[in-house]
Amino acid sequence: MKEYKVGILGVTGAVGQEMLKVLTERNFPISELRPLASAKSAGKKINYMGEDIVIQEAKDDAFKDLDFVLGAAENDIAERFAPSIKKSGAIFVDNSSAFRLHDDVPLVVPEVNGNDAFKHNGIIANPNCSTIITLMAVAPIAKISPIKTLVASTYQAVSGAGAGGLKELEDQVADYAQGKEIKNSVFAHQILFNLIPKIGGIGDNGYSSEEMKLQNEGRKILHLPDMKVCCTCVRVPVLRSHSISAQFVTEDKISVQEAKEAISKAKGVKLYDNGKNEVYPMPLVTSDQDLVYVGRIREDLINENGLALWCCGDQIRKGAATNAVQIAQLFL
Amino acid sequence: MKEYKVGILGVTGAVGQEMLKVLTERNFPISELRPLASAKSAGKKINYMGEDIVIQEAKDDAFKDLDFVLGAAENDIAERFAPSIKKSGAIFVDNSSAFRLHDDVPLVVPEVNGNDAFKHNGIIANPNCSTIITLMAVAPIAKISPIKTLVASTYQAVSGAGAGGLKELEDQVADYAQGKEIKNSVFAHQILFNLIPKIGGIGDNGYSSEEMKLQNEGRKILHLPDMKVCCTCVRVPVLRSHSISAQFVTEDKISVQEAKEAISKAKGVKLYDNGKNEVYPMPLVTSDQDLVYVGRIREDLINENGLALWCCGDQIRKGAATNAVQIAQLFL
Repeated sequence: MKEYKVGILGVTGAVGQEMLKVLTERNFPISELRPLASAKSAGKKINYMGEDIVIQEAKDDAFKDLDFVLGAAENDIAERFAPSIKKSGAIFVDNSSAFRLHDDVPLVVPEVNGNDAFKHNGIIANPNCSTIITLMAVAPIAKISPIKTLVASTYQAVSGAGAGGLKELEDQVADYAQGKEIKNSVFAHQILFNLIPKIGGIGDNGYSSEEMKLQNEGRKILHLPDMKVCCTCVRVPVLRSHSISAQFVTEDKISVQEAKEAISKAKGVKLYDNGKNEVYPMPLVTSDQDLVYVGRIREDLINENGLALWCCGDQIRKGAATNAVQIAQLFL
Repeated sequence: MKEYKVGILGVTGAVGQEMLKVLTERNFPISELRPLASAKSAGKKINYMGEDIVIQEAKDDAFKDLDFVLGAAENDIAERFAPSIKKSGAIFVDNSSAFRLHDDVPLVVPEVNGNDAFKHNGIIANPNCSTIITLMAVAPIAKISPIKTLVASTYQAVSGAGAGGLKELEDQVADYAQGKEIKNSVFAHQILFNLIPKIGGIGDNGYSSEEMKLQNEGRKILHLPDMKVCCTCVRVPVLRSHSISAQFVTEDKISVQEAKEAISKAKGVKLYDNGKNEVYPMPLVTSDQDLVYVGRIREDLINENGLALWCCGDQIRKGAATNAVQIAQLFL
C-alpha cells in the first residue's frame, strides 16, 4: 500500500490537534508526519502514533516532498504559504476561509460533492463548520429536489474560536463556581450563561461574515447558485458541537417521511428523531464523533414545499478536522 | 387614591416571587396583599414591603373580596380555581396557558393590544413568555404593515421551567466545577454545555406545544388570524432571559431604517443595534429589567418584504410577572 507524506500547518491549535487524532483513527497511510507551526512552537514535540515528533517552523522550504498539507491555520498564514505549498507539489487541503470562494479552488464536503475535489489546482478548501453541518443535514433532501430558500439560526459552540474559546468557557465556569470575577478576552462578552449573536465582522448588508458563509459556500457546494439563505449566527455556552435550526423550501414537495428516508440512507448523517421520547440531536450526544445528527423533522407551517429540522455535529471533527482528512482520503 | 386587594396564586414559584417585586417597584396601590399557594406552603411567610405576610392555602373561599388575582400557577391549578375567582368578582390575570385561546378571554400584551383587556369576562390571559418577547420586538413593525409569515428560533433560559430550572443549571455548574457527577431531574437531559431542542409535548404535526404558541397566541394578540409561523423552541444554558432569532415578511416593504425608527419610538422595547461595536441584545444585558431589547435588524436575503432581527428579554419579568402586573395596571 502506498504511503504518503503529510504535513499539518498549524498543528498546535484545536483543529490541528484533532487532525492528528483523525489521521490516526482512520489509519491514514503515512510514511512521514510533518507537524508545522509558528516559530514560537517550533522545537516542541507532538505525539503521533506513540512517537514524539518535533514541530518544525512553517517556512517556504518546509513543505518539500509532502503529498498533502492539511491547513489548520488562519487566513493570513494560509495565504502566506499557499504558493510554497503549491510549488512543493503537495495538495493543500485548507481549513481557512481564504480560498473557499476562488473559482479554481474546489470547496468540498466529501459526502455532498466529493467529485468536485478532483478539479483542484493545488488547493482544496474545507468549508465553514456551520456550513458543513447544515449541508450534511439538508443535502440528502436537496438531492430529491433542489433547495430554493433556507432560513437558518445557529447555536455555535465556543470551540469555533479554537482552543482559547474552549478554555475561556471552562475558566468562566470555574470562576463562577468559586465566586470569582469572570473575565473574557477571546469573546467580546462573557459567554457563560450568555449568548453572543454575532460571529465575525458585520458587513454593509448587516450580516456577519459567518452568516454570509452559509449562503456563499452553500451555493458552491450544492451547485445551487440561486439558493437564497437568511442566516443568524449565535455563539452559545456549549463546548464543541454546533447546532442549527433550519427551515427550507424545495422546488417540489418532499414529505417528512421522504426526508427521513433520505437522511437515514445518507452517509455521514444519523437520523435521530423521536422527540416524544426525548430523542433529538444535542451537543452532548454529538461531540467527539463524526456523524451529523438530524432530528425534529417536520413540515414547514408557512410554505407548502417547506420542511423544518434541527441538526447537530461536532464542530472540530466533521465541521473541520474530519472533513479535511476525508478530502485527502479521496486521493488515496 | 383607590387601593386594591390583590391575591397572588402560586406565590412561592419564580414568577409569583417576581410578581411581588414588580408590584412593589411599580407602587401598585394595594390595601391587602394576599399570598396564596398549596397546602404545603400555607403558614409560611413571604415579605412584602417590609412586612411578613402569612401564605394562605388556595381554596375556593380564599379569593373573597379580592379585586385582582395574579395567577402564577400551572394550568390545572388555574382551571381548578377560575370559577371561584370569578365568583369572588376579582379579575383573574392568569399566566398559565389554560385559557389563552378561549374566545371570551383576552390575551394581552399591554403595549401591543392593551385595549383587548377591557373585553374580559373575569379572566385575562398572560401570553407565553417567548411569544411576549417576540411580539414586543415585531409588533411596532407590524403596525406599519401586517406580518404575513414569521420564522422564529428561540434560545430559552432555564427560568422558563421555574425556580427548579434555575437551581438545576446552578447545581450542574457547581457539580461540574467540583468534578462531581452531573444530575438532572427538571430537564430531560443535562442542560449545562448542552441544548435541548424540545419544550413541551410534541403534537401530531411534529411541533412542540411551545412552538405552536407563537403562531396561535401571536395571531390572537396581533389580530392577524392568517399569520403563518414556523417556530423551533430550544432550551439553552442561560439563566433568565429568552432570546429569539426572527425572520418575517410583511405585506408591504419596510426598510431597515423604518423598522429601527418604529422600535425606537415604541414603548417597552429598546433599540440596541450596533453590531460593529459589539452592541446587540444578550441575556446578561437584558436580565432583571423590563425592556425587550432588539438588534441585528437587517433585510431578509430571501424575501423582498422581509426583515430579520434578534431580540432578548427577561422571561420572568416582561415574559411573565411584569406583563401580568401591567395588565392589572390597565384597570387602575
